[in-house]
Amino acid sequence: MNSDIPISQIKENQLIQKIIETQRQYSTNDVPYPIFKGIGDDAAVIDLYDDYLIITTDLLNKKHFPIQMSYKQMGWKVITVNISDLAAMGAKPQGMVVAMALNPELTEKEYQSLITGILEACQYYDCPLIGGDTNVSDELTLTATAIGIVKKEDLLQLSTAKPNDKIAITGPLGLTAIGLEYLLSVDYPKLPRNINKKTINFFVKNVLEPKAQLFKAQKYAKHPKIKGATDITDGLARELQIISQKSNVGIKIYENKIPYPKELPKIADYYNKNPEEYILHYGEDFELILILDKEFDMNDSVLNDLEIIGEVTDTNELEIIKSNGKIEKLSPHGYQHS
Amino acid sequence: MNSDIPISQIKENQLIQKIIETQRQYSTNDVPYPIFKGIGDDAAVIDLYDDYLIITTDLLNKKHFPIQMSYKQMGWKVITVNISDLAAMGAKPQGMVVAMALNPELTEKEYQSLITGILEACQYYDCPLIGGDTNVSDELTLTATAIGIVKKEDLLQLSTAKPNDKIAITGPLGLTAIGLEYLLSVDYPKLPRNINKKTINFFVKNVLEPKAQLFKAQKYAKHPKIKGATDITDGLARELQIISQKSNVGIKIYENKIPYPKELPKIADYYNKNPEEYILHYGEDFELILILDKEFDMNDSVLNDLEIIGEVTDTNELEIIKSNGKIEKLSPHGYQHS
Repeated sequence: MNSDIPISQIKENQLIQKIIETQRQYSTNDVPYPIFKGIGDDAAVIDLYDDYLIITTDLLNKKHFPIQMSYKQMGWKVITVNISDLAAMGAKPQGMVVAMALNPELTEKEYQSLITGILEACQYYDCPLIGGDTNVSDELTLTATAIGIVKKEDLLQLSTAKPNDKIAITGPLGLTAIGLEYLLSVDYPKLPRNINKKTINFFVKNVLEPKAQLFKAQKYAKHPKIKGATDITDGLARELQIISQKSNVGIKIYENKIPYPKELPKIADYYNKNPEEYILHYGEDFELILILDKEFDMNDSVLNDLEIIGEVTDTNELEIIKSNGKIEKLSPHGYQHS
Repeated sequence: MNSDIPISQIKENQLIQKIIETQRQYSTNDVPYPIFKGIGDDAAVIDLYDDYLIITTDLLNKKHFPIQMSYKQMGWKVITVNISDLAAMGAKPQGMVVAMALNPELTEKEYQSLITGILEACQYYDCPLIGGDTNVSDELTLTATAIGIVKKEDLLQLSTAKPNDKIAITGPLGLTAIGLEYLLSVDYPKLPRNINKKTINFFVKNVLEPKAQLFKAQKYAKHPKIKGATDITDGLARELQIISQKSNVGIKIYENKIPYPKELPKIADYYNKNPEEYILHYGEDFELILILDKEFDMNDSVLNDLEIIGEVTDTNELEIIKSNGKIEKLSPHGYQHS
């Protein structure tokens, strides 16, 4: 503590833990759930009579974007990551503010693309851009803060899981992993063996133009038997660990129930990666994990769009039932966001 | 438009104007008052039944802080600038989120000071830190977003000025100007002629440890004859111009009614500056400008804390009545925030 070691040697979670610890010294900062990215739920909550106000803030800077990403796509991305957090709480967006630290050599044309991306995305998610700030910085840094509202009974919370509840996801995993692997590969733009351009572009689009599951999420929030949600920012395993910790339960998932693109093993092999890493431990997929009440009606048509991949247990363990029937511990390691 | 010129050659107001223009193309982004720093009111507004939700976001990076500023003071500052914007709308803070782009060589000790400053300030303003994000960047960049609530009838708006209304300010101007002039002077820490250390420290404290006028502002917001407010981010003259534009009125101020520290002319002289620049065209004073209804009772005790410096006219001009009785146009040029 209080040492001269640089923070580059400290993990993000530990940095946030320091805030939480320091916060305990300040009585009026006694917040029921202070929410920082990387720990806790997806967004902060303010009690507002019949509703909750949901607030989330995400900061991205240019070095975290692949070099193939256009300024318009960067604008979209900073909006999408925030909307995804609102979605994971079941909230309807009310407004977005964007603070931009612009590097001085950014051209007018690039700036125009950036703000067009921001505004297109705000329109897409029906979340008006209500304000912001601009400033100059050595490095392009975009911070967006999204405000949403959710009826108290509709709030999706990660602390709601109980034994025998079901765990579902909204779509296949590993798409972003493949897309990024390709974009960051040393021999880019060389295609992986036996994979054509059209196929790889599908994955690349997922990296450069991801969409948040906002509209689905609002439907789920109103469903009386869907209790919690989170987006898969840090990889499936890590997000399941957070649910397990917040709810004080265990979770068991089935390897053969997790959907992923059929080309994934081939591409993983080409890049000498374990396909499991792509599917279980990679983030930024923007699909949602949902907690379904144990009394969920298995004939409910909402299941047409969902994959049930596991269930909640009373063991406090994260487990994966392999395709061969063997039960293994599921390592909670996740995608290390720089 | 869409040219290759770098944005460093474009003024902040023009960058923001581009957002507003682009926004018009997006129908669902049809926001009654989109609020960007540098134009319009101090913060964005969301309609919330009986109340307005007030949202403001400010981004500061390390190069904008004087080198004498400690990390703790930086933490305080990013909270204070946001609280000041809430104050100017009459809002009561409900929560703060902070997104930090941390430079990798920042030490654990410096980080601890930074978050201590943030949390102390949140406690001081009774605005809990409810969430945030951390990330890595070449340059320390702090973005805070403050959420406040104000009853609809209490909202302080700049568009409310009418001829014969009074213009008041909450305290003396030019303190920050002097403090910064000293801190940035080439022969720092040499004291200006005839000024002692204690005096200069008073001004320096205003730069390094400014406070927002939050608690006063909440009292003013409840006063039925106080209609509008803004903090003096960009200098008195520039803020009066914004009121004049938003309300479609003129404003006349009296040079000899504007309070400033008695040492100011001497210090301006020492640094070869025009004292008027310090008083009228320098920002970051965190005092508020208030619009008082023309029927304001001049015996009201609330005036004990205020200085009435001028009045609203029907001329659409900004004017200053000099000490010698001459009327001059008041140039609206303001402090150029980098």
